[in-house]
Amino acid sequence: MKIDLHKPILEKNDALAADLRRRFAEHHVYVVDLLASPGSGKTSTILATIDALRDEFNIAVIEGDIASSVDAEKIKAQGIPAVQINTGGACHLESAMLKRAVDVLDLARLDLIIVENVGNLVCPTDFDLGENAKVMILSVPEGDDKPLKYPGVFQVSDAVILNKVDTMPVFDFDRDAFESAVRDLNPKAPIFPIAATKGQGVEEWASWLAERVREA
Amino acid sequence: MKIDLHKPILEKNDALAADLRRRFAEHHVYVVDLLASPGSGKTSTILATIDALRDEFNIAVIEGDIASSVDAEKIKAQGIPAVQINTGGACHLESAMLKRAVDVLDLARLDLIIVENVGNLVCPTDFDLGENAKVMILSVPEGDDKPLKYPGVFQVSDAVILNKVDTMPVFDFDRDAFESAVRDLNPKAPIFPIAATKGQGVEEWASWLAERVREA
Repeated sequence: MKIDLHKPILEKNDALAADLRRRFAEHHVYVVDLLASPGSGKTSTILATIDALRDEFNIAVIEGDIASSVDAEKIKAQGIPAVQINTGGACHLESAMLKRAVDVLDLARLDLIIVENVGNLVCPTDFDLGENAKVMILSVPEGDDKPLKYPGVFQVSDAVILNKVDTMPVFDFDRDAFESAVRDLNPKAPIFPIAATKGQGVEEWASWLAERVREA
Repeated sequence: MKIDLHKPILEKNDALAADLRRRFAEHHVYVVDLLASPGSGKTSTILATIDALRDEFNIAVIEGDIASSVDAEKIKAQGIPAVQINTGGACHLESAMLKRAVDVLDLARLDLIIVENVGNLVCPTDFDLGENAKVMILSVPEGDDKPLKYPGVFQVSDAVILNKVDTMPVFDFDRDAFESAVRDLNPKAPIFPIAATKGQGVEEWASWLAERVREA
């Protein structure tokens, strides 16, 4: 007999995710789940996004990591509430972990929660967290062939951020090939080229996000 | 009742890994399992390693990817046998997958098998594949804080390759901080700084590996 372990685990996750989604909607909080490899610039992108949107919205950040709290410390240093989840080895966030983090936030006074998932292009794609959007970040040094090798994350993402575009001259990155490979997998998701640590190109991404937060 | 699913899955994996380890030893084949994030330069490192060692050893490569065979094609273009494993979504290789790939190779005429695991700093660390060594690659653009955030992979690795060192001036990478964080987690593993696509620093890594292949 073969037991499909995947199904019951996902069903339990999805039921909790549905609860979270109801809570977010009730409080008009928009939740974006950021997926990317280690080192693609998730935290820098969050810091740049906070910079762009903090005057209009009340923002909180939930940081998912295998270990450490270095990311949450960086966010808190900007005066933004941040909750660190240490997954203790797990390669993705699940809705039960997110619930524990959400429980310590005051949803009534928030407009936007940015969730930084564990650095991983594979595992987080299957798990609904009750978020409004999954957004992925690919950084230029990772290479333009990543849509071919990690198609799942490109398919589930509502938007694709291409980070570290300032380093394009250093790397042999074919932007046309990249964009066309993304289009084949996901015809709808906008692609936002940015250089988060330089603040370049962040306005377009931030205004896409702001439009959605206002409607939440 | 709580069922620990992790244990039986790992036990089955480890039994198959032990079989593989016996077969590798019997044929004096050294097997190195490369762990890294997407885009850290696993395939470029393999190509540079092949270049350095192909005169002395018979080499084969096993490529693990979620999807596509672009990496195996690059290896085959160099006249080296390459077997592609598509995990179909799984975030790491398991010994049952590796066995199917090993079965199509002629172990009697090989000295070295390089296994490129799925691009992921988390999941592959738990799975014994019967390999002689796990070696991890971190690339400079990923950042010097990765040992704090992904300690497991640094702990299980027998050597650490720091790739793309030619881009250090572009990124704010603190090499001393990185090396000291690696040392805290793993006092023994040598750290090899290389620039795989430029062929820089590959000799030291290749001679470390060659020494082990000769003794297999």
